[in-house]
Amino acid sequence: MGPGAGASADDIRAAYVLGQLIARADWVLVTGGRATGVMDAACRGARAEGGLTVGILPTDDARGMSAAVDIPILTGMGQARNNINVLSSVAVFACGMGAGTAAEIALAIKAGKPAILLNVAEAGQTFFAELGKGQVHLVNTPEEAVALAKRLITGA
Amino acid sequence: MGPGAGASADDIRAAYVLGQLIARADWVLVTGGRATGVMDAACRGARAEGGLTVGILPTDDARGMSAAVDIPILTGMGQARNNINVLSSVAVFACGMGAGTAAEIALAIKAGKPAILLNVAEAGQTFFAELGKGQVHLVNTPEEAVALAKRLITGA
Amino acid sequence: MGPGAGASADDIRAAYVLGQLIARADWVLVTGGRATGVMDAACRGARAEGGLTVGILPTDDARGMSAAVDIPILTGMGQARNNINVLSSVAVFACGMGAGTAAEIALAIKAGKPAILLNVAEAGQTFFAELGKGQVHLVNTPEEAVALAKRLITGA
Amino acid sequence: MGPGAGASADDIRAAYVLGQLIARADWVLVTGGRATGVMDAACRGARAEGGLTVGILPTDDARGMSAAVDIPILTGMGQARNNINVLSSVAVFACGMGAGTAAEIALAIKAGKPAILLNVAEAGQTFFAELGKGQVHLVNTPEEAVALAKRLITGA
Repeated sequence: MGPGAGASADDIRAAYVLGQLIARADWVLVTGGRATGVMDAACRGARAEGGLTVGILPTDDARGMSAAVDIPILTGMGQARNNINVLSSVAVFACGMGAGTAAEIALAIKAGKPAILLNVAEAGQTFFAELGKGQVHLVNTPEEAVALAKRLITGA
Repeated sequence: MGPGAGASADDIRAAYVLGQLIARADWVLVTGGRATGVMDAACRGARAEGGLTVGILPTDDARGMSAAVDIPILTGMGQARNNINVLSSVAVFACGMGAGTAAEIALAIKAGKPAILLNVAEAGQTFFAELGKGQVHLVNTPEEAVALAKRLITGA
Repeated sequence: MGPGAGASADDIRAAYVLGQLIARADWVLVTGGRATGVMDAACRGARAEGGLTVGILPTDDARGMSAAVDIPILTGMGQARNNINVLSSVAVFACGMGAGTAAEIALAIKAGKPAILLNVAEAGQTFFAELGKGQVHLVNTPEEAVALAKRLITGA
Repeated sequence: MGPGAGASADDIRAAYVLGQLIARADWVLVTGGRATGVMDAACRGARAEGGLTVGILPTDDARGMSAAVDIPILTGMGQARNNINVLSSVAVFACGMGAGTAAEIALAIKAGKPAILLNVAEAGQTFFAELGKGQVHLVNTPEEAVALAKRLITGA
């Protein structure tokens, strides 16, 4: 999860690597599916490594969809689809910050899912770490994010 | 699409074959994802042929999910998820009839998708053929259903 | 519930009277809220009698909303909002027929709500009466529809 | 909007007064509708002043609903209903903080609605003020919240 049009160059670089690592871990990548920002970069990264990508779109057709989405889920329900992204994920990676990303981190906390924050500025780190207690994890690199998710998921 | 607990033995046989043919056509199978009736049979059929199966579930966790679902989409939104099944499909196959199936055929008509009806009794055939005009197609076998979908999709 | 742009003059007349009678019964009217067809006519009828009207809209803003809606619920989720209309209703009146109306009658059956059908042609009567068994009721006038709903709701 | 079970005594006192002031302003109060925390207190406050209350519930029936809800909207879609609360509101008051509340403030920013924060601790103030720029307003009392909303809505 992460910003669309508002993503920084650094968010996009990190999201691409995150997508690659998720694919190499043999996980399915779930994103918001649009052809912009973090969603698009993560899908492109996963595809570059032969991964499978699911895009849960806010729209009722495939216009504006990332070309690197393999399985489009067309919800036609706008931002209400954020909750489906979260419920369908085993762990939520947030890369960068925007209003939609903040909603998804909050919904992940509500749903009891681990949320791993990368490229999130101090105010967001402080707020979500407090809101989500043990569920929210702060990391500095995509590699650290995926290594942590592996430990959280397998309990290893 | 088709009934869950209310599916007949014949609905389940037809759904299993439909799943097989969908997989052999190299299409992704989208169902309601629960471990019952037509959804489960179609997923099992597709998996038997090495196909990929998406289950768009009404629940917010994976309890009650068909073991033959590869990609679970957990919506937590009950029957409102029927519209997502329809929007995410290129063509809708209805196999048998129930209240949820009827809602999905009606939503397919509303969304402008082709709906192919198999194992639907006369009253349903008459009603939906009239409601959906050129969008609703009546077939007698899974083979006929998939052959028709191929023609509709490719325009061949 | 009933067709929008596809409503007949007779559907609209019946919906207006239905709205009036619902208001006189001191019930809150719930419709799909758009400024067209049965939704709009029922809201106008209810308002003419001083009733309260709720419109559960498919859109995320109030453009295209009936001017006779008192309480707009903006869902931004298209046809998936039909399930909210049904769940939020004690009884569902269908006046006329269209793809959206058919979906709502089917969802009412699924949700265990009584569905009262007015101005529905024979094919629809036959299909839904069979699908919904004791839950689906066929009536000939708005007066009969509301009298029946009173009996069903109060058990009198 | 505000926490349910996690609401503090102070959140509940402030929400009750907010409900009273919303009713006195002749506005319709929209809440999440459950019989707990800020939602319940705001509805009780509004009702005490003769206001009209809408509850947009996560459930598909009225169990667990605040007794002070006049118009229950039963969505059956869990936390995805938060987006409907926000879209259906002209301005969003957040009173206290929790994961659901944070999601709603973020969705309000995304939807371009003004968000007025009361009883929000410093980390949340800092984060949302930055995220929502001119859309997020920090206030200290219910009176200040409603006075500000009046100015924002009427542009006076």
